[in-house]
Amino acid sequence: MKLVRETLKQEELISMIEKLAKAIYQDIKHHNNPTFSVPSRSSDNIIYNERKDVIYLGDRESKRSFHNTGTSTAFTQMLFILSIIHEAAVNGKHLTKREIYYQDPELFDKDQKTSDDIIEDIAVTLGVTRPCLRVVATAKGVCIGDLTLREGEDTFNCNMLGRGGWSISPFIDEVEIVDCGAEFVLVVEKDAAMIRLVEEEFHKKYNCLLITGKGQPDIATRRLVRRLHKEEGLPVYILTDSDSYGMQICSSYKRGSISLSFESPYLAVPKAKYLGLLPSDLDKFKVPKAARLKMTEWDIKKAQTMLQYPWISKNRRWKKELLLMLERKEKAELQALAKHGITFMTDVYIPQKLETMDWI
Amino acid sequence: MKLVRETLKQEELISMIEKLAKAIYQDIKHHNNPTFSVPSRSSDNIIYNERKDVIYLGDRESKRSFHNTGTSTAFTQMLFILSIIHEAAVNGKHLTKREIYYQDPELFDKDQKTSDDIIEDIAVTLGVTRPCLRVVATAKGVCIGDLTLREGEDTFNCNMLGRGGWSISPFIDEVEIVDCGAEFVLVVEKDAAMIRLVEEEFHKKYNCLLITGKGQPDIATRRLVRRLHKEEGLPVYILTDSDSYGMQICSSYKRGSISLSFESPYLAVPKAKYLGLLPSDLDKFKVPKAARLKMTEWDIKKAQTMLQYPWISKNRRWKKELLLMLERKEKAELQALAKHGITFMTDVYIPQKLETMDWI
Repeated sequence: MKLVRETLKQEELISMIEKLAKAIYQDIKHHNNPTFSVPSRSSDNIIYNERKDVIYLGDRESKRSFHNTGTSTAFTQMLFILSIIHEAAVNGKHLTKREIYYQDPELFDKDQKTSDDIIEDIAVTLGVTRPCLRVVATAKGVCIGDLTLREGEDTFNCNMLGRGGWSISPFIDEVEIVDCGAEFVLVVEKDAAMIRLVEEEFHKKYNCLLITGKGQPDIATRRLVRRLHKEEGLPVYILTDSDSYGMQICSSYKRGSISLSFESPYLAVPKAKYLGLLPSDLDKFKVPKAARLKMTEWDIKKAQTMLQYPWISKNRRWKKELLLMLERKEKAELQALAKHGITFMTDVYIPQKLETMDWI
Repeated sequence: MKLVRETLKQEELISMIEKLAKAIYQDIKHHNNPTFSVPSRSSDNIIYNERKDVIYLGDRESKRSFHNTGTSTAFTQMLFILSIIHEAAVNGKHLTKREIYYQDPELFDKDQKTSDDIIEDIAVTLGVTRPCLRVVATAKGVCIGDLTLREGEDTFNCNMLGRGGWSISPFIDEVEIVDCGAEFVLVVEKDAAMIRLVEEEFHKKYNCLLITGKGQPDIATRRLVRRLHKEEGLPVYILTDSDSYGMQICSSYKRGSISLSFESPYLAVPKAKYLGLLPSDLDKFKVPKAARLKMTEWDIKKAQTMLQYPWISKNRRWKKELLLMLERKEKAELQALAKHGITFMTDVYIPQKLETMDWI
């Protein structure tokens, strides 16, 4: 099981890269074949830790040598990006993935996917997370509620920003949690549901933080949720639509994802509770048939694939919900609850689920 | 030319709907055929005002009667949604489009597009914008810079929120601009460019507001840009990628869009300047060939369609840039400038463009 560091000082990054570069230099000097040993990030090199309920990266590695026609390009790409990251770190800058790509599009076969992959490879080779490389990705999450943060010289409370809230910083690791008056985190898959929660002032009535990743959450949003859980000890509850995509999103908040398994320990919140909308909620809360949707071919295939994952197949309650969904071939959006009145979700559904601890 | 009101008090909305309902009631009572006269929102009912450089809705209307097999469903849908909007307004609530849909999915043929269209029809029938109906859409824009806003009891400055910034409120019309120290607005198409601008503290060095709509901008983001221009007199400059999609986005900030032409006067900023990345910038700023991309079939078709629009064909400089793009069949992302160094965009490109007034 490969564990990576989740924080790294600027100077440490610089010296790590220089150490790697010196080893390459020695290889060249002694007429050896300069080689990187890169942990494999492929989907068959992941380890699911059932006790911890987290997806980790396995121990398999592959070699990328300069004197090997099959790997010389990847070797060159790695060395080039290492030099760019080094230069940025020396200058105290961050980089975006796209900026790295544009340093030499031809070297990356004019495809940004190539350089993006190499960046992840470098992170895992150095045994750190991607943000440790000072490579930032755009963040689209929003946070509202009684949370005081400090970034640089700015100190602010996310409860004082009207109904818009704080746009989560892409540099989330450099944000300090100064104070947190909220008692739990409610993560919402989509921002349409967020509008209702905010209008009903759910975060004030229940003294919680509302966070949405607006669909598939980005790294910064997941990282903030994790930090609130670890540093502030806040319980985390997750609300999604009742479909395979929603379950997948909840699972990635909880356990991490396959593609970023090496960063899971730094992003996952295994104790997060899946509040709903659960397939079993549809009958329990009398969601009318007309407000339910037929699962598409894609939905069904996705659900069937998910059933194969050990973190679903070994989890009795997740499996049961997913099987129920597949049996009914029905899905539903959170707003289907609005049939019982637009405030049913905030006045009845969520409070009742929380009170009766009705989650999985 | 159909002009709509851009602000409406809650009580006015209620009485407008009641007036409409009473007319329908009288029709029924006198055995007339209850009918709505709905301005047509189709693309052949738009008027381009060349002098003002704004797209308006034309005067054509269609009738929706209850006793007409072709329109009775649409009539019923309109009346139903009017009653929902009325009820929400009486209770001081807002609604999302999706919540409206779920009040009766079967009435809308189980397709949210149907209810969304009816909502726009109601707005234009009442002669108001959609937000006036208290129907809110999700907002994904972000604002950073010296701008003090008030929403409800919260007063805050968008310069004090770290590098995340303020997530623009979906209820933007209820946000008050308290004070604005910034001197202009720089609108950025994508948030990847925003990260660079924020890291270089461009908004502090040049005392401006940075706003991104994260791709195709939502209504709230466009509305905020417009309000900053109208209420605070700030000049607006727009940065996009150099492709047909980027030009289209810039055009919708400037002149409004075809699909929401009735809201253009309330969203457009005709005096906004298109700073770049212009097709002519690619040579001017020596963007290397390797960092340019081939236009796809879709890009080319889109550009050719845009050339037919009067707001392009009658605008010499826009037309020239678009023709140059089509001649070269090349596009480029803003980050292509990073080839000259990651801070080239913030240190050289934007300042030089602003100083030499090199925009269209």
